[in-house]
Amino acid sequence: MKRVAVLVEDLYQDLEVWYPILRLREEGIEVVVVGTGKGSYKGKYGYPIEEDVSVEDVKASEFDGVVIPGGYAPDFLRRYPRVNSFVREIYESGGVVGSICHGGWVLISAGIVRGKRVTSFFAIRDDLVNAGANFEDSEVVVDGNLVTSRMPDDLPAFVKTIIEVGKSK
Amino acid sequence: MKRVAVLVEDLYQDLEVWYPILRLREEGIEVVVVGTGKGSYKGKYGYPIEEDVSVEDVKASEFDGVVIPGGYAPDFLRRYPRVNSFVREIYESGGVVGSICHGGWVLISAGIVRGKRVTSFFAIRDDLVNAGANFEDSEVVVDGNLVTSRMPDDLPAFVKTIIEVGKSK
Repeated sequence: MKRVAVLVEDLYQDLEVWYPILRLREEGIEVVVVGTGKGSYKGKYGYPIEEDVSVEDVKASEFDGVVIPGGYAPDFLRRYPRVNSFVREIYESGGVVGSICHGGWVLISAGIVRGKRVTSFFAIRDDLVNAGANFEDSEVVVDGNLVTSRMPDDLPAFVKTIIEVGKSK
Repeated sequence: MKRVAVLVEDLYQDLEVWYPILRLREEGIEVVVVGTGKGSYKGKYGYPIEEDVSVEDVKASEFDGVVIPGGYAPDFLRRYPRVNSFVREIYESGGVVGSICHGGWVLISAGIVRGKRVTSFFAIRDDLVNAGANFEDSEVVVDGNLVTSRMPDDLPAFVKTIIEVGKSK
């Protein structure tokens, strides 16, 4: 796993963006911050981030994985058809798709959860179940190349597992 | 390295507290959030944290290391004699002392930098030099059991190095 996209939009959960960025960099993985074209964003608690590139200007084939953070950013992200197709293309090409917290909303709109084992923040459990997912309440759930977690406390296990799944491919 | 204290006070640099906490937990290390007795604190960008215990109620001998974050928290932390003696006792017992950014102010007041190789955020370089330190501009500097870094971008190298120094002891 050499190159991973981290999706951002306003109201992202601050740690769910920054912990993966820093931890993947420790592993020597290139991390690209992919936004929706606004340029800069603020987290739920106000931590700023700049996008490296807009999702409109990236090819899924250039990435080995994507991380979808929580907070309310996923409610914005899923409004962009290109966000959803970008995630789906990475998933279908075998790249690692990591989603935490409310990130599951993007998985739903990307159309990749039916019949899959997933977890998420408990508030959106019904949305995942209604989309056909098999919901589990665990700190991290792996189904093939799909890695999901529930909340910021799960971040150590979440990113460690993304790295492991990425190495095994 | 089994048990590490992370010092907190208001205006802590959000990532410089939370990245070490989460990354050390990934390693199976117990992390204890040590404050000054206020109970709860907010980072520079507003991220909240609760202390597990006040520095007045801990023994240095119960810890294998301590992390001192930046932001303006160090300006508050160094006002507490028990913060400075806690850091000095851990250092003198051979525990790992990690300091990033403005954390160097606490190293100065703990009296442990004279003749030591250190780095910090460039704004407090003069304070470290005046305290007798040998200043270097590198993402991470190791001198014995003292590990220092400059800024949030250095976090992947900073915590990785703390873990390595902790294992080698």
